[in-house]
Amino acid sequence: MDATEQLCRELIARPSVTPEDADCQALMAQRLEAVGFHCESLDFGEVKNLWAVRGETGPLLVFAGHTDVVPPGPLEQWDSDPFQPEVRDGYLYGRGAADMKASLAAMVVACEEFAEAHSNHKGRIGLLITSDEEGPAVNGTVKVVDELVSRGEVIDWCLVGEPSSTEALGDVIKNGRRGSLGAVLRIHGKQGHVAYPHLAENPIHRAMAALDTLAREHWDDGNAFFPPTSFQISNINAGTGATNVIPGELEVLFNFRFSTESTAEGLQQRTIEILSSHGLNYSIDWNLSGQPFLTDAGALVDAAVGSIAQETGLQAELSTAGGTSDGRFIAPTGAQVLELGPVNATIHQRNERVLQADLPRLTAIYRGVMEGLLLN
Amino acid sequence: MDATEQLCRELIARPSVTPEDADCQALMAQRLEAVGFHCESLDFGEVKNLWAVRGETGPLLVFAGHTDVVPPGPLEQWDSDPFQPEVRDGYLYGRGAADMKASLAAMVVACEEFAEAHSNHKGRIGLLITSDEEGPAVNGTVKVVDELVSRGEVIDWCLVGEPSSTEALGDVIKNGRRGSLGAVLRIHGKQGHVAYPHLAENPIHRAMAALDTLAREHWDDGNAFFPPTSFQISNINAGTGATNVIPGELEVLFNFRFSTESTAEGLQQRTIEILSSHGLNYSIDWNLSGQPFLTDAGALVDAAVGSIAQETGLQAELSTAGGTSDGRFIAPTGAQVLELGPVNATIHQRNERVLQADLPRLTAIYRGVMEGLLLN
Repeated sequence: MDATEQLCRELIARPSVTPEDADCQALMAQRLEAVGFHCESLDFGEVKNLWAVRGETGPLLVFAGHTDVVPPGPLEQWDSDPFQPEVRDGYLYGRGAADMKASLAAMVVACEEFAEAHSNHKGRIGLLITSDEEGPAVNGTVKVVDELVSRGEVIDWCLVGEPSSTEALGDVIKNGRRGSLGAVLRIHGKQGHVAYPHLAENPIHRAMAALDTLAREHWDDGNAFFPPTSFQISNINAGTGATNVIPGELEVLFNFRFSTESTAEGLQQRTIEILSSHGLNYSIDWNLSGQPFLTDAGALVDAAVGSIAQETGLQAELSTAGGTSDGRFIAPTGAQVLELGPVNATIHQRNERVLQADLPRLTAIYRGVMEGLLLN
Repeated sequence: MDATEQLCRELIARPSVTPEDADCQALMAQRLEAVGFHCESLDFGEVKNLWAVRGETGPLLVFAGHTDVVPPGPLEQWDSDPFQPEVRDGYLYGRGAADMKASLAAMVVACEEFAEAHSNHKGRIGLLITSDEEGPAVNGTVKVVDELVSRGEVIDWCLVGEPSSTEALGDVIKNGRRGSLGAVLRIHGKQGHVAYPHLAENPIHRAMAALDTLAREHWDDGNAFFPPTSFQISNINAGTGATNVIPGELEVLFNFRFSTESTAEGLQQRTIEILSSHGLNYSIDWNLSGQPFLTDAGALVDAAVGSIAQETGLQAELSTAGGTSDGRFIAPTGAQVLELGPVNATIHQRNERVLQADLPRLTAIYRGVMEGLLLN
């Protein structure tokens, strides 16, 4: 059996639902230590993190990823046990097959092959693996990055193993992510009886024009890599169900997904200006869950695009679409960050799967990136 | 002890929380039959209703009211048992003291006194009493009115015993009520992920401008008796709490309190025009809970104002403010309808009370109305 498939199966068989690691990291560390990696556990709270590094000096290429998987959901909706890897019609099935145990297996096998073929490569290879990417993401990558920064470690290039491909392996590389800025907005009014509206102040009525303005606002034009910044209200709530009571407060949850043409501070300020211009009595709590980042050109992009072309013949598309990933925690250190992994069509769904034939090819792509960056 | 106070105490001691009557109507019927009333139970479902009438022909004056009371709430918040009438500092305390067992006692005693003094009065005196005014109001007055209409009974004048007074007994007569028109509005969108807004349709964003227009709309100017029609949103809800999901639907509950310058049909049509002009995909369910009514002049107003002036020296103010009452079911038959009862400062509250001295005075006012309408 192919080495990557073999390791991927062993990882799937470990039911590592967030924040569980189920000894996936121990298995990876054992393999990596055998080819000269120094492995270290950097656990925080109940979250297990692995930091493995090979080489002494020079530029640092890090493979980043997570051993945790989302829950399988109702087992009867799966055609086979989500934690018993099974091949059907050329696909390997199991929870985490695509997100992202195939990538973890490919990273380890690629490192083994590369270390064997080029034991005196230049620079350093690191693996930053967490067991809490699908969960709160508080004690995972962000804490490990803090620790590395405090040690003076500088990550030059980072390849996150998130399943970035859409139709075929390597067709899409994520070279950035929009920022995500959330808020809880409370419009304060004065409760009363609908029969006596002059004695009350309806916060719903007060808020409509301001929320309409926010929903229509053109925040920026985006740029070559990012769509325009978008504003979306996800929740709006006022009233207790009683039809004769004017409620005292309206609560609105909204979220910005923002391009590198806007900043979190700028969006906050413009939001506040709009709310204030409507004379609202309000309070607001902001939550910045990720700064936008962009890796638009450079050695890492060249190496990744080149390796994909060589292995698959595809010209990879660079994209910043989609949700957040742990790349948001690594990019602010100044690292070039890309996300490159298998086809994401079945992630977080029942019957999650990865094309069996893609497993050794992903390993070859990762090895090719190392060869592009860490030889001569 | 004063006869009205005595009867009011006996009624308070019967814990007739909606829809219970607790034999209040039986007690009233017994007293009324003794002075020549023909009494009839017109019960529907679990609701008890009393229809009592005295006299054979001629114009019909009806006293309307309810024996049911709202729940007392936490007993520890009362300074005495809500169902044990108790006098302190000149006030009679108990649940229903003001709303509206004082009125019921005054009606019965006034009828006794009037029948004794004027046994050959002209016209007819009726009492229409229900045990479901504070509840759903489905099997109470509205059903009795239906029955009377089907019998060909015509109510000329109706005095509802609701506590209309604000500062002193007789200072305010309610001579009408606004209509009440409610609606449940659902704006349909398309659910999606906040990171991919182009694949979703946010119903909150779609609705804001339309709701703002509705909230700002000037529906009418009101008139000498009614304030302008008001529109109030009481509830607005969308979203499940998840901050990364664009909800598929927005639900809005709103209510019109409308003057006689608008009609329910007209308000519905204008609302629909505004919603449609904003291109919304929506559905709406209307609930007309009361047509507006107005008794602006005539023999009943003259008799009530005159009787109050004679008993209290006050010039009663005519008002249409406030919530709905069972008058809404009687007015559409063509009857002149007024609401006249004790001070409403403590209704639906703990330590509900009525001024002890007001009890015989309310009886005198009711008797004076009969004298104004049913003599000479």
